[in-house]
Amino acid sequence: MNYSIIKRTLGALLIFEAVFLALPLVTAAIYWEEAFFSFLISIALCLGVGKLCMLGKPKKQTIYNKEGFVIVALSWVVLSLFGALPFYFSGVTGSYVDALFETVSGFTTTGATIFPDGATIEALPKSILLWRSFTHWVGGMGVLVFIMAFLPLSGAQNLHMMKAESPGPQVGKLVPKVKQTAKILYLIYSAMTLVQLVILLCGGMPVFDAINAAFATAGTGGFSIKADGFAGYSNFLQVVVTVFMLLFSINFNSYYLISKGKWKDAFTTEVKAFLAIVFTAIALITANLLLNGIIDYGYSFGEAVRHTAFAVASIISTTGFVTENFDLWPAFSRTILVVLMFIGACAGSTGGGMKVSRVIMLSKEASHEVGRILHPKQVKKITMDKRVVDHEIVRSLNAYFTAYVLIFVVSLLLISLDGHDLVTNFTSVAATINNVGPGLALVGPVGSFSFFSDFSKIVYIFDMLAGRLEIFPMLVLFSVNTWKK
Amino acid sequence: MNYSIIKRTLGALLIFEAVFLALPLVTAAIYWEEAFFSFLISIALCLGVGKLCMLGKPKKQTIYNKEGFVIVALSWVVLSLFGALPFYFSGVTGSYVDALFETVSGFTTTGATIFPDGATIEALPKSILLWRSFTHWVGGMGVLVFIMAFLPLSGAQNLHMMKAESPGPQVGKLVPKVKQTAKILYLIYSAMTLVQLVILLCGGMPVFDAINAAFATAGTGGFSIKADGFAGYSNFLQVVVTVFMLLFSINFNSYYLISKGKWKDAFTTEVKAFLAIVFTAIALITANLLLNGIIDYGYSFGEAVRHTAFAVASIISTTGFVTENFDLWPAFSRTILVVLMFIGACAGSTGGGMKVSRVIMLSKEASHEVGRILHPKQVKKITMDKRVVDHEIVRSLNAYFTAYVLIFVVSLLLISLDGHDLVTNFTSVAATINNVGPGLALVGPVGSFSFFSDFSKIVYIFDMLAGRLEIFPMLVLFSVNTWKK
Repeated sequence: MNYSIIKRTLGALLIFEAVFLALPLVTAAIYWEEAFFSFLISIALCLGVGKLCMLGKPKKQTIYNKEGFVIVALSWVVLSLFGALPFYFSGVTGSYVDALFETVSGFTTTGATIFPDGATIEALPKSILLWRSFTHWVGGMGVLVFIMAFLPLSGAQNLHMMKAESPGPQVGKLVPKVKQTAKILYLIYSAMTLVQLVILLCGGMPVFDAINAAFATAGTGGFSIKADGFAGYSNFLQVVVTVFMLLFSINFNSYYLISKGKWKDAFTTEVKAFLAIVFTAIALITANLLLNGIIDYGYSFGEAVRHTAFAVASIISTTGFVTENFDLWPAFSRTILVVLMFIGACAGSTGGGMKVSRVIMLSKEASHEVGRILHPKQVKKITMDKRVVDHEIVRSLNAYFTAYVLIFVVSLLLISLDGHDLVTNFTSVAATINNVGPGLALVGPVGSFSFFSDFSKIVYIFDMLAGRLEIFPMLVLFSVNTWKK
Repeated sequence: MNYSIIKRTLGALLIFEAVFLALPLVTAAIYWEEAFFSFLISIALCLGVGKLCMLGKPKKQTIYNKEGFVIVALSWVVLSLFGALPFYFSGVTGSYVDALFETVSGFTTTGATIFPDGATIEALPKSILLWRSFTHWVGGMGVLVFIMAFLPLSGAQNLHMMKAESPGPQVGKLVPKVKQTAKILYLIYSAMTLVQLVILLCGGMPVFDAINAAFATAGTGGFSIKADGFAGYSNFLQVVVTVFMLLFSINFNSYYLISKGKWKDAFTTEVKAFLAIVFTAIALITANLLLNGIIDYGYSFGEAVRHTAFAVASIISTTGFVTENFDLWPAFSRTILVVLMFIGACAGSTGGGMKVSRVIMLSKEASHEVGRILHPKQVKKITMDKRVVDHEIVRSLNAYFTAYVLIFVVSLLLISLDGHDLVTNFTSVAATINNVGPGLALVGPVGSFSFFSDFSKIVYIFDMLAGRLEIFPMLVLFSVNTWKK
């Protein structure tokens, strides 16, 4: 294990975090908030520890797959441990575990909160609110991707890290150089965030609200600064957020291809399937609401479509914003939403979940097995967009799926020790491992994660990180074999 | 597609079914029940249609994998369609769908019932009760395995059919000849059923009760003839049933090996893991009940262990008998029971679920992936009992797991249209696809499947068959490609 390079990378990361923390620091200064000092101390700590880690030259530059995974997992842990400091120092969270939960929920773009209700959230200092939203933006595209875009690291090193941090079964390099790819990704990401911000402002959203909303939508995070989520904003603003939640759920490769004029290539099998799932879900839930729910909910057709589209976009993108309490919707609608939590967004987007491409490949694998029973001698490989999917990727896909289910089951067992109802337990694990935010019942749109024991909160922290990093970096970090000589 | 051989096998099957139906017919005669005529007509129909199908000689004897799967799936469908007739003719079920549900639940050894309460069940004719229990025994070891033991079919044909009907990822031929294997399996099965019957009788169980209990335990079915399940029987009888539920969940190969004196070989990785899971679950639930539940349940330590052991054995064996309403137990205990539903019994037993060996292999696959990240050049194959698991089996295992999850999710969506609560919906699908019987909430130990719509009941019928036949025969049956020229 190349410890010196791990230490150096973590050091660089902390210095970047200090830079990120400057944004809420400035906000605290503008609004003359006491939290200013919490941010100041946090920045000082990041810089101090960061500089210490950067001392000395690494003995060798080479890193392997193993180090790549360890660096990614440790980076996210360290980023969260230090990112939690402002919450803790300012005293807005009761305990450090709560502060850490909120920060991990932010960076992993989950959006599950430990603040017990909307009133508490609205009463938070503005700088704290902005830090919450900004963690979404930083975590959305990946903080190591960000570092790669600016730090002079060797190519192999970058690829190993990108492999571990990128969401989805395949690493999509847009251009031969990883560094260049990272830059392009952040350029697209920033541009889209800016466009959304401008549209929200044009739509009449207050500046502070719009900045927070743009950060949280771009990262498909879900932290809201209002007690009623997005219910209080105009229909136009709700529609804008709906559209952008979906846009940020699409593989960023597609935007790059569109920028190169390759429109046809941009609409991959995954993107088409994603859109098909979105529209089918909207149609089914709207129909279900209108047929079963018209008496209970009193939505007009237009309202039903708007609320449904918002909920579907929010859940499949794993953002987690709300306009309506979908926990009151009929069983069929709620079940669809829970299924969408697991499917999640496209690979290479800022969204979470299992990713649409994985669901497609797994389905193809199952259907090929039927084909093999019918024609035992026929060898059919899994293809995506007419290209054969590499054997390694299929194997890794299966391992991912199993590991995902195993972690889900173990988490479910552990948090059930708290003794809450089974719908709360199941959907709380689904909402954290898929980085969605809200679930159903006690963790529904009007609920929070405040009432869980510290032990359960630590389980959720693990699940959020495992979900964001797609399981294996966290398993490598906690595997005994990783640390054996 | 070799239609003539399919027709002939189905014909033979119906004639066997007529023979099976003779048992409840005799019972009806002994107890002088009106249901006698329902059984008589059913037998006549089975014989008539069976003979018709047997007319004419098959053009060619050869069958392929495809035909094997189609024969198995169709056999179970036809067996159930005719087996439902006595329920329907005698008027004990309201509709034919209900009769079919009850029959499929019987043959697939699920044990979920459409009779709304215990009082209704206790009031059923004795011949009908015996037919319910007997379907468990017939379905437990596999009706085609039974036919194979007695009909002169070619070896290849047998193997394809056995492959499709046997529970578990690998087909275990005990001896080189399939026919001989089938005979040995039924010999062990019958002997064990008889031993249980004798012990139950010695323990003071009434003869009729003991016969029903032995049939339902042997098949790990779960239909009970009493309103309170096994709660009314003595502690000794409850312990006997607990032990036999576990014995019937163990791979029958192990018993064959024991009969040959190969004790060491009999305790395979799967058997050891199964026993470890059973004892861990009993320990955890007992502890959970004693710590959280002592006030609510008032069990003594001994009672807690007895009820827990019964529930764990009943659920992991996918039998579904009850002594206590475990739906009232704490969340942790209930969650463990739900997880056990999915794990299920050992391959090659009469139990359902995903099978312990599949869970072991999938876990190994996931852990190997971590190993591969650490040592990318190291090629490690999955082994079971020190033998490398064939690549084909691993591939088929992954496809099974995905298809299983997909069918689960689609079923969940379809039955959620009925609008019941999510715990009922989730556990009802789990209880049917894993052939367990009871779930939680409305389908809990004191509930039934009577209140579901006919549409949902058909979904459950599909799930029970898919679960019993391990997914693929049902998928092959419904695949368009199977029926294309």
